[in-house]
Amino acid sequence: MVYELHYWPGIQGRGEFVRLALEEAGVEYVDVARQPVKQGGGEQALVGLMQELDPPPFAPPFLVSETMVIAQTANILLFLGHHHNLAPSDEPGRLWVNQLQLTIADLVAEAHEVHHPIASSLYYEDQKAPAKKRAQHFRKERIPKYLGYFERILRGGGESGAGLAGELLCYADLSLFQAVRGLQYAFPKAMTALKPNLSGVLALAQRVETRPNIARYLASPRRIAFNKQGIFRHYPELDG
Amino acid sequence: MVYELHYWPGIQGRGEFVRLALEEAGVEYVDVARQPVKQGGGEQALVGLMQELDPPPFAPPFLVSETMVIAQTANILLFLGHHHNLAPSDEPGRLWVNQLQLTIADLVAEAHEVHHPIASSLYYEDQKAPAKKRAQHFRKERIPKYLGYFERILRGGGESGAGLAGELLCYADLSLFQAVRGLQYAFPKAMTALKPNLSGVLALAQRVETRPNIARYLASPRRIAFNKQGIFRHYPELDG
Repeated sequence: MVYELHYWPGIQGRGEFVRLALEEAGVEYVDVARQPVKQGGGEQALVGLMQELDPPPFAPPFLVSETMVIAQTANILLFLGHHHNLAPSDEPGRLWVNQLQLTIADLVAEAHEVHHPIASSLYYEDQKAPAKKRAQHFRKERIPKYLGYFERILRGGGESGAGLAGELLCYADLSLFQAVRGLQYAFPKAMTALKPNLSGVLALAQRVETRPNIARYLASPRRIAFNKQGIFRHYPELDG
Repeated sequence: MVYELHYWPGIQGRGEFVRLALEEAGVEYVDVARQPVKQGGGEQALVGLMQELDPPPFAPPFLVSETMVIAQTANILLFLGHHHNLAPSDEPGRLWVNQLQLTIADLVAEAHEVHHPIASSLYYEDQKAPAKKRAQHFRKERIPKYLGYFERILRGGGESGAGLAGELLCYADLSLFQAVRGLQYAFPKAMTALKPNLSGVLALAQRVETRPNIARYLASPRRIAFNKQGIFRHYPELDG
């Protein structure tokens, strides 16, 4: 069977965490909204589909399998991890990876709040002053706290080369890679300053990036570039 | 076995979603940080425990079972739902309830952002002006969007008396109750204005509240009152 991924076509966004899992697993999928309009692509078709689905997802991304419509990024990954060997098969391992993914989701949500501290319905330009204040706290307090947490786990794992759930590459490893690259894109100065404290995290991101399926994906036109419509945005004034 | 719940002692916060599931299921648990200090209670012991645990949780709440330490509210509920009949046992049902819970978690996170739009490390008093702006968008756009979404699901369910996952009471029903009561506490005027559009959601909250185990819990000293240290805070200036 071929999965359908439904997500806003112009950005990596939260869809990217799902794409990385699908690509690493090597399973077939159609990134529906990125298809030509006459093949069902485009934003309008996506919005229309969400209104038709019953029960509806709250927001993209959602994944359509043969029998299910699954929404919420961490939930889609829980499903994919289980069926495509991207998570341990025992209950403690599955819950551990889900726990990490939810922590990454919190970081990702905060990364978005930085440039939209008042409302996601307003332009960045209309909330620049509070964004600048929020960015300072995000760079000084939140990035170090989140990435320091993952660093602690990776160092606790002991063996070099292990990921967040040990030897098995899990979907949280893929998501951490994406979050790190996103933060490096959005906050290059802040992330460079943190480099000495994040050797484990940065090494993991590097290992993920060079896995054959991921490397092939990143070099393909399927990978959308980071840009200023996504979650991770580079506004120099927010990087201190 | 007796579960240990670890959460900040003075607030409902995210711990409350776990408490409601434990209470409804009628399982024994100790709310550890709320015990006297000499019995291991208090904030300091909680902070200390988090530093000792390996691997560590990122933040409270976390649940300790005989064999596991489980963190992230939605992850704890995934576990409890599975073991205590608060979620369907089939995969589509489990994923559906998890999806809803993650949507509720997003709403809860935004409810906190309203009074802390710049940084959770600053006092509310130091971010009142942006909080007021954010609150306006939250009341006008976000509350109606989130609760309207749950209303649509409940109406789609058809049968009166059914919850978010049909006849079986699920943990997302409990969490929706908590979110609704929290929003009513924090934004009484806004929530009163929305009342005509939320008959399904408000009826569900009422049904949850009158379930024997929940009613007993709410009347007990185990239930902490809503207050201005929690996620849902009543600041009249944020209620329009």
